[in-house]
Amino acid sequence: MTDIAKRFEKNPILVPAAVRPSHTGLDVECLLNPGVFEYDNKIWLLMRVAERPQQKEGKISFPVMDNGKIRILEFDKSAPHLNCSDQRAITYKGHGYLTTLSHLRLAYSTDGNHFTVVDDNPIFGQGPLESYGIEDCRVAKIEGKYYLTYTAVSNYGYGVGLMSTSDWMNFNRYGMIISGPNKDCALFEERINGKYCCLHRPNMSIVGGNYIWLAESNDLRFWGGHKCVAATRDGMWDSERIGSGASPIKTNKGWLEIYHGADKNHRYCLGALLLDIDDPSKVIARSDEPIMEPIEDYEKNGFFGNVIFTNGHIIKGDTLIIYYGASDKVICKAELSINDILNSLKI
Amino acid sequence: MTDIAKRFEKNPILVPAAVRPSHTGLDVECLLNPGVFEYDNKIWLLMRVAERPQQKEGKISFPVMDNGKIRILEFDKSAPHLNCSDQRAITYKGHGYLTTLSHLRLAYSTDGNHFTVVDDNPIFGQGPLESYGIEDCRVAKIEGKYYLTYTAVSNYGYGVGLMSTSDWMNFNRYGMIISGPNKDCALFEERINGKYCCLHRPNMSIVGGNYIWLAESNDLRFWGGHKCVAATRDGMWDSERIGSGASPIKTNKGWLEIYHGADKNHRYCLGALLLDIDDPSKVIARSDEPIMEPIEDYEKNGFFGNVIFTNGHIIKGDTLIIYYGASDKVICKAELSINDILNSLKI
Repeated sequence: MTDIAKRFEKNPILVPAAVRPSHTGLDVECLLNPGVFEYDNKIWLLMRVAERPQQKEGKISFPVMDNGKIRILEFDKSAPHLNCSDQRAITYKGHGYLTTLSHLRLAYSTDGNHFTVVDDNPIFGQGPLESYGIEDCRVAKIEGKYYLTYTAVSNYGYGVGLMSTSDWMNFNRYGMIISGPNKDCALFEERINGKYCCLHRPNMSIVGGNYIWLAESNDLRFWGGHKCVAATRDGMWDSERIGSGASPIKTNKGWLEIYHGADKNHRYCLGALLLDIDDPSKVIARSDEPIMEPIEDYEKNGFFGNVIFTNGHIIKGDTLIIYYGASDKVICKAELSINDILNSLKI
Repeated sequence: MTDIAKRFEKNPILVPAAVRPSHTGLDVECLLNPGVFEYDNKIWLLMRVAERPQQKEGKISFPVMDNGKIRILEFDKSAPHLNCSDQRAITYKGHGYLTTLSHLRLAYSTDGNHFTVVDDNPIFGQGPLESYGIEDCRVAKIEGKYYLTYTAVSNYGYGVGLMSTSDWMNFNRYGMIISGPNKDCALFEERINGKYCCLHRPNMSIVGGNYIWLAESNDLRFWGGHKCVAATRDGMWDSERIGSGASPIKTNKGWLEIYHGADKNHRYCLGALLLDIDDPSKVIARSDEPIMEPIEDYEKNGFFGNVIFTNGHIIKGDTLIIYYGASDKVICKAELSINDILNSLKI
């Protein structure tokens, strides 16, 4: 047992019932995986809100965005060519759909424990590449502006979308900046050797796998110089897929990146990578064992059980305060010592 | 039967035996999918040369690049956890490998029919992202310089690599410009609305599929603004995967792109897309039926049968002269009338 996270005693801190559905006829099914930032002397979460209609006996139904409007698709569970073995996504006649539609919503707090949800001005996906929603948004503050990297999903596939804002009221949207299948894009909050950098997670098949890659950019909108940073490890806790969390943390030992790893049973734990400060494509050290794993009931049971997934944090001295999605259902909080994490890594 | 290609009567024009193996102990197994360009008053092919050792009874062996050197991997065909049902790629204990290692080699001709292979100076993959080879190189001439987009393959996956050259002796290598899984990247040979553009082919799973996308760039090295251009079509000849051929051809009706489409039986045919001249993410017209399909024996039987795949052509007035890989084995030539192609498209 190598879990070094101190969970908040009143976890979960936010549950689906705390959020007003965005449209009549939809339920908030999951509240999860928030981006985290500080603004206007408050701590803010940019939460992923996953919705669907109440499910009828023998049916599966879910919303999609269609020209800015919600449309409900419904299938008989007994329909031929329907595969709904995964709680999160189904296929019908060879085409994939998500079982929920996600958008982003803000919540703020002055103490980091008690959050007020802002039900106004939810951020929805726009256009044909976001018709199945936008998910798991990271928030990076770069040169005074906030940059939001998120998973844009549609019937065309999924890739990394980018928005920016200075006031959290007006947003610039830059479309898909990294082509898919790709998600888990975390921006570095300063330039390295003159270039903006990000970690991202292509989903390779045939050769390769679900590994963490690095890319670089002159302007945050156009990306190249892709390099593989870290791969999954056979037989270990991160054997099946890995992906970055929030922006890398600059330490005097290198860039510390909290990442999630899943094994073949889809059990999602957290670990860390220490990356070279001048060349973050080089891994200096890595977690042999998870630094946090699903232990509590709310982490083991939910919409998709045995999942701890973080893509947002606050740093206070040595304390890393992470906000995380537990079991793809609720939002929780935990604290870890950055020094303890660094000391736990294997070179 | 909608095939409108006039095949060269002496096809194939180049076969594996015409090429000297790059290393002692390797055989040239396939010669295929050339990029095509004009230089120094000659027509040139930049061929994909796929090599492997002579296969021993009961074994499967193939080369990989390891720090600039060839290394041979060998498995017993009876090994547990080995899947070699695909002629082109195998998996062993969940890791993927290619059965051949590809590099690029030049051949030139003064008449476009008889080619002289240049066995010196083959172009090999470099670095960790090209250890399984480089494949299917498109050659675009932009502002007086040649740009080579190719598939870079390694144990980390596959994506789009870029090189440039002015003299075909010295090459600048820019690494992976579009992250994977991605291949079939064709550059437009002029800027559109001030931006360089390319077509590319991500390999989506869960949602989406093997569709043709567009991206844009300010400098050819960093790419963004990804949009889906065209999807596969259920029940048609291009139901399973599609991918661009060579650079789009500028016509007075729009950009004409020859693409390959495969069905569920992996039968690869050619069709065409007509794209809006100012916004090439918009499809104006498309082939309902293939304009070229595997008919001849050399197209139906080879390393991987029933494949016609082109990524290089020459234009002479209304005549589109395509060079193509047939059955992943040999290089062939055919001519099509650009007007006939345009007239065959369905709006």
